[in-house]
Amino acid sequence: MRTITVADLADLSVGATLLGTGGGGDPYIGSLMTEAAISRFGPVTLIDVDELPDEGLVIPAAMMGAPTVMVEKIPNGREIQTAVSALERTLNQKAIAIMTIEAGGINSMIPLAVAAELGLPVIDGDSMGRAFPELQMTSFHVHGIRATPMALVDEKGNHLIIDAIDNPWTERLARTATVAVGGAAIIALYPMTGRQAKMTMVRGTMGKAMELGRLLRDTRLSVTEIGEKLSGDHGALELFSGKVVDVERHSGDGFARGTLSCSGLGAYDGSVLRIEFQNENLIALRDGIVVATVPDLICVLDRETLMPITTEGLTYGQRVTVYAFPCDPVWNTPKGMETVGPRYFGYQVDYTPLQR
Amino acid sequence: MRTITVADLADLSVGATLLGTGGGGDPYIGSLMTEAAISRFGPVTLIDVDELPDEGLVIPAAMMGAPTVMVEKIPNGREIQTAVSALERTLNQKAIAIMTIEAGGINSMIPLAVAAELGLPVIDGDSMGRAFPELQMTSFHVHGIRATPMALVDEKGNHLIIDAIDNPWTERLARTATVAVGGAAIIALYPMTGRQAKMTMVRGTMGKAMELGRLLRDTRLSVTEIGEKLSGDHGALELFSGKVVDVERHSGDGFARGTLSCSGLGAYDGSVLRIEFQNENLIALRDGIVVATVPDLICVLDRETLMPITTEGLTYGQRVTVYAFPCDPVWNTPKGMETVGPRYFGYQVDYTPLQR
Repeated sequence: MRTITVADLADLSVGATLLGTGGGGDPYIGSLMTEAAISRFGPVTLIDVDELPDEGLVIPAAMMGAPTVMVEKIPNGREIQTAVSALERTLNQKAIAIMTIEAGGINSMIPLAVAAELGLPVIDGDSMGRAFPELQMTSFHVHGIRATPMALVDEKGNHLIIDAIDNPWTERLARTATVAVGGAAIIALYPMTGRQAKMTMVRGTMGKAMELGRLLRDTRLSVTEIGEKLSGDHGALELFSGKVVDVERHSGDGFARGTLSCSGLGAYDGSVLRIEFQNENLIALRDGIVVATVPDLICVLDRETLMPITTEGLTYGQRVTVYAFPCDPVWNTPKGMETVGPRYFGYQVDYTPLQR
Repeated sequence: MRTITVADLADLSVGATLLGTGGGGDPYIGSLMTEAAISRFGPVTLIDVDELPDEGLVIPAAMMGAPTVMVEKIPNGREIQTAVSALERTLNQKAIAIMTIEAGGINSMIPLAVAAELGLPVIDGDSMGRAFPELQMTSFHVHGIRATPMALVDEKGNHLIIDAIDNPWTERLARTATVAVGGAAIIALYPMTGRQAKMTMVRGTMGKAMELGRLLRDTRLSVTEIGEKLSGDHGALELFSGKVVDVERHSGDGFARGTLSCSGLGAYDGSVLRIEFQNENLIALRDGIVVATVPDLICVLDRETLMPITTEGLTYGQRVTVYAFPCDPVWNTPKGMETVGPRYFGYQVDYTPLQR
C-alpha cells in the first residue's frame, strides 16, 4: 500500500502514456483531471491486489473513444462518478476498490480521480499492461470474465447500462453508443470480486508506469543513458530513430486509425519505418520488414526529450525514437493471441516475440 | 373492457396496418406472434384508460427499426417480456397494464403478445393514432413525458437500459443501438402512471383499428361501398388510384426511406402520384402538387382487395388506391407540429388539413 499525491502525477502520466503505446489518452488532460480531484478530495491509496478481500466488488473505469476526440471532450469528475454509481446501483452493491482497464495518459488517471472523489483505493494493475483499442482486449476476457453489466455516460448527462451476450457484443454496442454521443464516453465495466481481480489482472502496471516516468523525466541522465536503462531494466528494443515524414489519419468508426511514416536519422539513415495504428500502435515495419507487432508495445518518443507521443500527437517533422517493449505473458497464450494478436487486426503475420 | 381473442386478430391487424400508414410492421408477422401468445396464454383484456388506477405503472412496448428488417427478424415472446421485465426491474415496480406506442401490423400486436404472457390488460389507445418513424413522435412527448428509462433488447439476448437527457437523445441512442444489433429491436419505454396515461394518450386506437379492419375485410360490400364508408364514417379522402411504376429505397441509417411513384388509372388517368416515406408515408404529391402531408395519414391499399400495403410491401406493377385520413387533434398544436409536421422531416411546406 502506498499513497499517490499530486507530486506523483507527472511521473505516472508520462510512464502510463509510454505504456499506452500511442493510445490511452493525452497525459496533460489526464494529469489536470486527477490533480484537480486529488487537490479537492485528498490523496489516493494505491493497494496491491492481494490486499483486497475476496468478496468485495471491484469496478474498473475508463474513457472510451478515439483519442483524437478525447482531447476535445475533457471529462469531469462528476461523469466518472456517475458511471461507477450507475454500475453500483445496477448491481445493488457498493464498490470497495477502483481499477484501471489500461495504461494511458487518461486511462491510468481516471480511476485515480474517481477513487479520490469516492474515498476508495485504486488497485495497482490493469487488464492489459498497456493500452488496446477494444473492450474485450483484456486479461479479464482471456480468463472468461464478462464485461457487462457496464455503464456508459457522456458529459451531457446521457447514460446507458449495457448487458450483452458476450464481450465482443459489448464492444460493438458500447462503440456505437460512444460514436452516437460524440466520439468519447466514460465507462465502468467488468465488475468483479476481489478474488476474480487477484486471478485475472495484470499486476503492478501503475508502479511500473511511475518507475518508467521517473526514468524518462530524470534530467540527470543523458538520452543515451536512459535508453540503456530502458533496454537493461525494462527489456526495451530500439526499433528506429528518425523524422516523421507523413501521418495519414481516418477516424470515422469511433477509432483513430492511421499510418505513421518516418525516414531514418543517424544509424538508421536511408531506412524508413512505417507504423499502423488503431488508437494504439499495432505493427511496425522497417524497410518493409515487420520488426514488432501487437501485443508487444510499440512506443514513439520524442528523440530529444524522450517524452512519449500519442497517436493523436504525431505531426510532420517531429524527430522521434521508437522502442518496443515485451508484452505481459497473458497475451502469449492461445486465447490471448486470438484476442489481440496481429491476425485479429487483419495482418497476415504471426506474432514473434521481440528479437534482441 | 372487452376481450381480444384469436378471432379478433385478423380485423385488428388489417386495421392497424392501415393506421400504420406504411410503417408499424407487417400484419402477417404481427398476427402470427399474437395468435401464438393468445393460444398459449389465453385471451387479452382490452380496457379503457379510465378503468386504470391513477398510481399504477403503465409500460408501452414496441418493435423499433426499419420495417424492411423487421420482417426478417421475427421477435419471439420471450424478448418482448425481457424488455418489459428489464424496465420493471430498473423502476423496481411491476406494470399493471401494457400500452401500444403506435398503430401497425406488428406494433399493435406486440403489446397483446406480452400482455397475454404476463396476464396484464392492454389499454385501448396509443401515442400517435397512427405510426411515426421516431421515438419522440408521441403524444407523451408533446405533453412532456420522458421516454426513459427505456429498455432495448434483441433476439440474441443483448439488452440495454437507456437514460437520456431528453427524448430526441433517446431516439438517437436507441436508433444507433438498433442498427448495431442488426436493424430491429424490441423496446419498452415511456413508463408512466395511470394518471399520466389518462392525460396524454391517444384514445381508442385499438377499437378504431378493429372497426376499420372489419370494414376493409367485409366481403358483403363492394370496393366502392367500402370507399364510401371510409369517407363517410372515418373522414377519408381518396387521393389517387393507379399503378406502381417505381419504388426507390435506401435503408442505411436504421430507417426504410424511399419514394413511391404511381401512374393514374380510371379517373386519375394521365396523373402521377409520388409518395415519400421514412418507414411511414410522409408526403403525397399529385402532379407535383402537395395533396397530403404528415401528420395526416397517407395510406396505400391494394386497389382490388383494399388490403393496406406497408412501405416494405410496395412493388412495381401493384394496382393501388391511396387514401388520406385526418390525424388526431394532438398533432395540430404548436408542439405537435414541431414534432411531426412536414418541416421536421425536411419539407418546406406548411401543414394544411385535408381539403375535401
